[in-house]
Amino acid sequence: MRLRIVVLFLVGSFSGLAQSQNWVETAPGIWKLSVGKPEAYNLLTAAESKPNTEALTKLGKTGFPIAKDDISVRVEGGKTYLRLPLDRGEQIFGFGLNFQTVHQRGKILQLHMDHYGNKDNGRTHAPVPFYVSSKGYGVFVNSARYINVYAGTAVRQDSKNPPKVQDRNTDKTWEARPYSDAVEMLVPAEGVDLYVFGGPTPMDAVRRFNLFNGGGCLPPRWGLGFTQRVNRLYSADDVQKEAQEFEDRKYPLDFIGLEPGWQSKSYPCTFEWDKGRFPQPGLFVKTMLDRGIRINLWTNPYVSPEASIYPKIAPYTGSHTVWVGAVPDLTMPQAREIFWGKFASDHIDIGVSGYKIDEIDGYDFYLWPDVATFPSGLSAEQMRQTYGLLVQKQSADLFHQRNQRTYGLVRASNAGGSSLPYVIYNDYYSHEDFITALINSGFAGVLWTPEVRASKTSEEWLRRFQTVCFSPMAMINAWASSTKPWSFPDVAEQIKEIAQLRMKMMPYWYTEFAKYHFEGTPPFRAMNLEDGFQTEAKKEVLTASLEENPYAEAVSKEIKDQYMAGEYLLVAPLFTGQTTRKVILPKGKWYDFYTGKFAGDGEVITVTPGLDKIPVYVKDGGIIPMMPPLLHAPKPDQKIDLEIRHYGEKPAQSRLYDDDGETFNYEKGQYVWRIITVERQKNGQWKGLVSNPEKGKPDTIGKVTWRFMTSP
Amino acid sequence: MRLRIVVLFLVGSFSGLAQSQNWVETAPGIWKLSVGKPEAYNLLTAAESKPNTEALTKLGKTGFPIAKDDISVRVEGGKTYLRLPLDRGEQIFGFGLNFQTVHQRGKILQLHMDHYGNKDNGRTHAPVPFYVSSKGYGVFVNSARYINVYAGTAVRQDSKNPPKVQDRNTDKTWEARPYSDAVEMLVPAEGVDLYVFGGPTPMDAVRRFNLFNGGGCLPPRWGLGFTQRVNRLYSADDVQKEAQEFEDRKYPLDFIGLEPGWQSKSYPCTFEWDKGRFPQPGLFVKTMLDRGIRINLWTNPYVSPEASIYPKIAPYTGSHTVWVGAVPDLTMPQAREIFWGKFASDHIDIGVSGYKIDEIDGYDFYLWPDVATFPSGLSAEQMRQTYGLLVQKQSADLFHQRNQRTYGLVRASNAGGSSLPYVIYNDYYSHEDFITALINSGFAGVLWTPEVRASKTSEEWLRRFQTVCFSPMAMINAWASSTKPWSFPDVAEQIKEIAQLRMKMMPYWYTEFAKYHFEGTPPFRAMNLEDGFQTEAKKEVLTASLEENPYAEAVSKEIKDQYMAGEYLLVAPLFTGQTTRKVILPKGKWYDFYTGKFAGDGEVITVTPGLDKIPVYVKDGGIIPMMPPLLHAPKPDQKIDLEIRHYGEKPAQSRLYDDDGETFNYEKGQYVWRIITVERQKNGQWKGLVSNPEKGKPDTIGKVTWRFMTSP
Repeated sequence: MRLRIVVLFLVGSFSGLAQSQNWVETAPGIWKLSVGKPEAYNLLTAAESKPNTEALTKLGKTGFPIAKDDISVRVEGGKTYLRLPLDRGEQIFGFGLNFQTVHQRGKILQLHMDHYGNKDNGRTHAPVPFYVSSKGYGVFVNSARYINVYAGTAVRQDSKNPPKVQDRNTDKTWEARPYSDAVEMLVPAEGVDLYVFGGPTPMDAVRRFNLFNGGGCLPPRWGLGFTQRVNRLYSADDVQKEAQEFEDRKYPLDFIGLEPGWQSKSYPCTFEWDKGRFPQPGLFVKTMLDRGIRINLWTNPYVSPEASIYPKIAPYTGSHTVWVGAVPDLTMPQAREIFWGKFASDHIDIGVSGYKIDEIDGYDFYLWPDVATFPSGLSAEQMRQTYGLLVQKQSADLFHQRNQRTYGLVRASNAGGSSLPYVIYNDYYSHEDFITALINSGFAGVLWTPEVRASKTSEEWLRRFQTVCFSPMAMINAWASSTKPWSFPDVAEQIKEIAQLRMKMMPYWYTEFAKYHFEGTPPFRAMNLEDGFQTEAKKEVLTASLEENPYAEAVSKEIKDQYMAGEYLLVAPLFTGQTTRKVILPKGKWYDFYTGKFAGDGEVITVTPGLDKIPVYVKDGGIIPMMPPLLHAPKPDQKIDLEIRHYGEKPAQSRLYDDDGETFNYEKGQYVWRIITVERQKNGQWKGLVSNPEKGKPDTIGKVTWRFMTSP
Repeated sequence: MRLRIVVLFLVGSFSGLAQSQNWVETAPGIWKLSVGKPEAYNLLTAAESKPNTEALTKLGKTGFPIAKDDISVRVEGGKTYLRLPLDRGEQIFGFGLNFQTVHQRGKILQLHMDHYGNKDNGRTHAPVPFYVSSKGYGVFVNSARYINVYAGTAVRQDSKNPPKVQDRNTDKTWEARPYSDAVEMLVPAEGVDLYVFGGPTPMDAVRRFNLFNGGGCLPPRWGLGFTQRVNRLYSADDVQKEAQEFEDRKYPLDFIGLEPGWQSKSYPCTFEWDKGRFPQPGLFVKTMLDRGIRINLWTNPYVSPEASIYPKIAPYTGSHTVWVGAVPDLTMPQAREIFWGKFASDHIDIGVSGYKIDEIDGYDFYLWPDVATFPSGLSAEQMRQTYGLLVQKQSADLFHQRNQRTYGLVRASNAGGSSLPYVIYNDYYSHEDFITALINSGFAGVLWTPEVRASKTSEEWLRRFQTVCFSPMAMINAWASSTKPWSFPDVAEQIKEIAQLRMKMMPYWYTEFAKYHFEGTPPFRAMNLEDGFQTEAKKEVLTASLEENPYAEAVSKEIKDQYMAGEYLLVAPLFTGQTTRKVILPKGKWYDFYTGKFAGDGEVITVTPGLDKIPVYVKDGGIIPMMPPLLHAPKPDQKIDLEIRHYGEKPAQSRLYDDDGETFNYEKGQYVWRIITVERQKNGQWKGLVSNPEKGKPDTIGKVTWRFMTSP
């Protein structure tokens, strides 16, 4: 009795500080709670993102998905404390671009912009303060601060679901990590806007988050083709020779990336063409465009004192340098004008198609320190959390102003950036973990490429190449290695085949990205967002030796090596050394992508695909539109023949997105969703139908061939 | 011209916020600058430390060691920015208990109380915000916050010594980490007290820091004997049997540590004796004391709801639990009284001699989270940074009140704790890194033991045992392994020999700890504090492959495997697998500890000592007082025969400290420094002399034998 009184006293004393909650529905199924005094500068303002209200409205109404009484918010000592409930068995996903784990319950993170340092601790290229629950809702904290997250680890005295007290001396079931019933977060600011996204499914919550950020990015068609990044010291001649070789050997190629050597000086940068290696940049870019190949330029934003813009931009740069280069304060209009003005005049206006913006994530040892100051008055921390958003948004705007789409690479992003046409990459180069990152990108509203660089063996080369062709950007990044698709002769043909498959699938990829843009569905994502897929992270104590594991801590084992690619495809890559693997097929029938044969239904299968193939499975009723293996993406008005594949036994209907593939005219309605229908006729034969073109809308569909893969 | 104007503008705009500096000399050679509004609760208040002004005065006057104009302090946005200059070639040491590096220039750290996670990133058991410069000064930031440190990494646009701008495209000497001329720190508080400690030598700066904290701890004599921590589930009978076995086998033993099983329940704890394993605790402790063996009790501070003190202490505990145990807010008098009252009545008053206080450092996964709140209003962060100080100080006070010294183990400490009678330990168990920690402990005002637990081989067992006998606490920690000194029969004799050597050297160790207490000189410390020792951390680029090392980063190689033990000894341990090693002897002549033979002078020697020996070298003129290999430390009035060893060719004078070895009567002057003089007589023979005892002062010296090790 005495005990109970004490506990009540405690609850009273702590909850006395809690704020009453005034949740406002800002869009259908999205609620916002302003806690304390939210800062004017945050992730959404940095990204300048605008919700796609129309699409959100289409997603429909849903109820507030959490018991409000179980949410606690509080500001104290200049910091904001947030707490959200967790049920027993509830799983959570997200918290940015993690590389080694999908399940996030039980994690302690500090969401902190960083290169990836080999540990899922919150320091990553996209430390997005958003998580999704298996119960079908999402939570987003709109803060440009380093946020501490206790994702189901912290245990409160006043918990409604406390763990039991155990005696470690005698109880063998004693646990090093007692049960926790909440996600708790600490935001080092005097307030924050907290958002809750409704479901009813986890996928709906993800869609709402992406649409709230403006919808996913819609790349130009050529962005989904193949890209090669050449050696960092290549000259214009070297690049043209390499492009010629692609053509001669009949490997597809849509854009070439130039690495630091295109600049007269790099690290720090001038943003100016090197006169020796590129004597006539305008002519070079035009010549390349004429042969159907776009040019993407590497840069980082650190301004060399020898850059022509330096004297003008210096007053609008931070107190500290990065590799002795000045850091533009891109929140200031003056800095933007000078900085991007250079990009516009020297690159974009001569035909450059996009950028690879490097090193804004920040390995601590090169980035500006947290003690840096910026002339706008924003802190180093705020600048670090958002610099990736700033460069993406501001560079994308340059292209948007020219009604020209871009698609590039960036090493830092954050919430708010879903619609920005950039793919994240890094130097970490673990093939397995690159796939886990691809999975997690779908929870974070970002895109990620498991790029290929060097490889030790042709097996590794091919295995990596297979996965990059089932990703948002099919790229070889040969800045240091100078490798080319045919560098491993014994698998050169297989490489060509998978590169061609990438091109053939362009209508499918393009449509799936359109769904990302218009409907918020991430094109690459976790199995956990798929109906009929249910796994838990299994916990195991790996050693009973208290010498080696003093607290007998358990380690999680989870599924992180297979993913969904678009609406219909399940991809289960193999890694170097593997000849066989297990694949978990969700409930429902699944078919082999290459043969159309039945593969399984809600079961674990073991496959031995051979080195040539990456295992891919198609959902029953899956429709995959394909085109011929062109070397370059189709031009805006180019009619393209289609082979439309149908898998399984279900009659089906799907959609094919079409627009000019290069401009923003789709924003003015210049796009169309063509309906593809596959039905059984009375004679038992399949019949496929594509809806008629719409008047005044794009129509690039040429001749249509049908392939009924499972039962012809 | 234009450029220059811009830069001046920048300097103006940033330094406009800088605070004017009013440095106050708070003790001879120690200056304090109050920046902004320093917080009332800080490391020194938590430790309740008081400067030893008398000893500081003795150290003498010295000038302010840094150009004041090069120091910058500033408060902005609720945070404090500190900057101190670095010269070219200047080396810095410290920043707490690092395990893998001694040189700290070039590091980025967040000083954060933590278990050690395999990386020197500031997260450690003693994240002490103090550093020492090779130029002979120290800097201390008195804050109980997580402090970000850029120790010579951040590069400012307004730097007086800027790195040169290089073009990475063409310049092969381009560096990934440009030269930085400052230590910069960010304290997340609106102010802080900054201290500068004068030299003229780095050792003087360390001494001043330790004396400022009240001087180093003076353990009881028995604390420097041997200690065994027994299996966690041992009963009183088991313990007595083990003690008997030590006696029968003639291995020294001064105190035994009981692990969690002495408590009726642990994790969370009751702090009460287990009636089954220890039916008569009072009798048990007394019996052990009677046979000359003290009892030390393991505990962590997390209160089980089943503990008898729980109902009373609950209102004074934090919002979150650790292993379901309540966390006492030990800054509140109510909590202290209840918590330590239990320790006094149930342990200390029946004769328990000390504690091992575990798990207050905090692996994030068990400690209270940063979102926890405490009834005193202090934040979780402040509590985490200081909890180790609180438990040390408050438990030590219990013994002090009883005029009885204690010496125990703790897993967390911080600045201010130098005088507290605790040695830090952890679970990391890398022998090599344990030695590096021992080296760094001397820069941090803490003690560290490279404890022995299990070992895979008798070689490892012996090599570890050798080093633990040349450390602040000679301990086997067998809580999980149940190993005993004789567990590896093939080296059991060698183990006994080194344990006996530990006992024989007790007069030396005790004197060196007295120097720590009265003069601030750390008994175990880096070579870098030794005159005549100069090395730099050499930088090497380990691979030229940009694939594996994209920024061609250099790695530091440094000396971190030899250390000074007391005034005269240089210890150069070998690790498993080594049969030979290099030893760097500072300038001046050095002699083999075992034979007295000349070993070298300012040179690198290679030694092959065999498995039985740990290489130890004695400075020319070194005097090592030794006693017989007793099984237990001498009692207060016990006369002890001495063998006084002299090494080398120099006549010498040294001091031998003496007091009762158990009480605090030395605080009332009940101690004596006996002078030992060794001179050459006219006949060329050495002669040794011990000064006469002082009237009314302790005198435990029995018969004295002289050994002139080098030239008898």
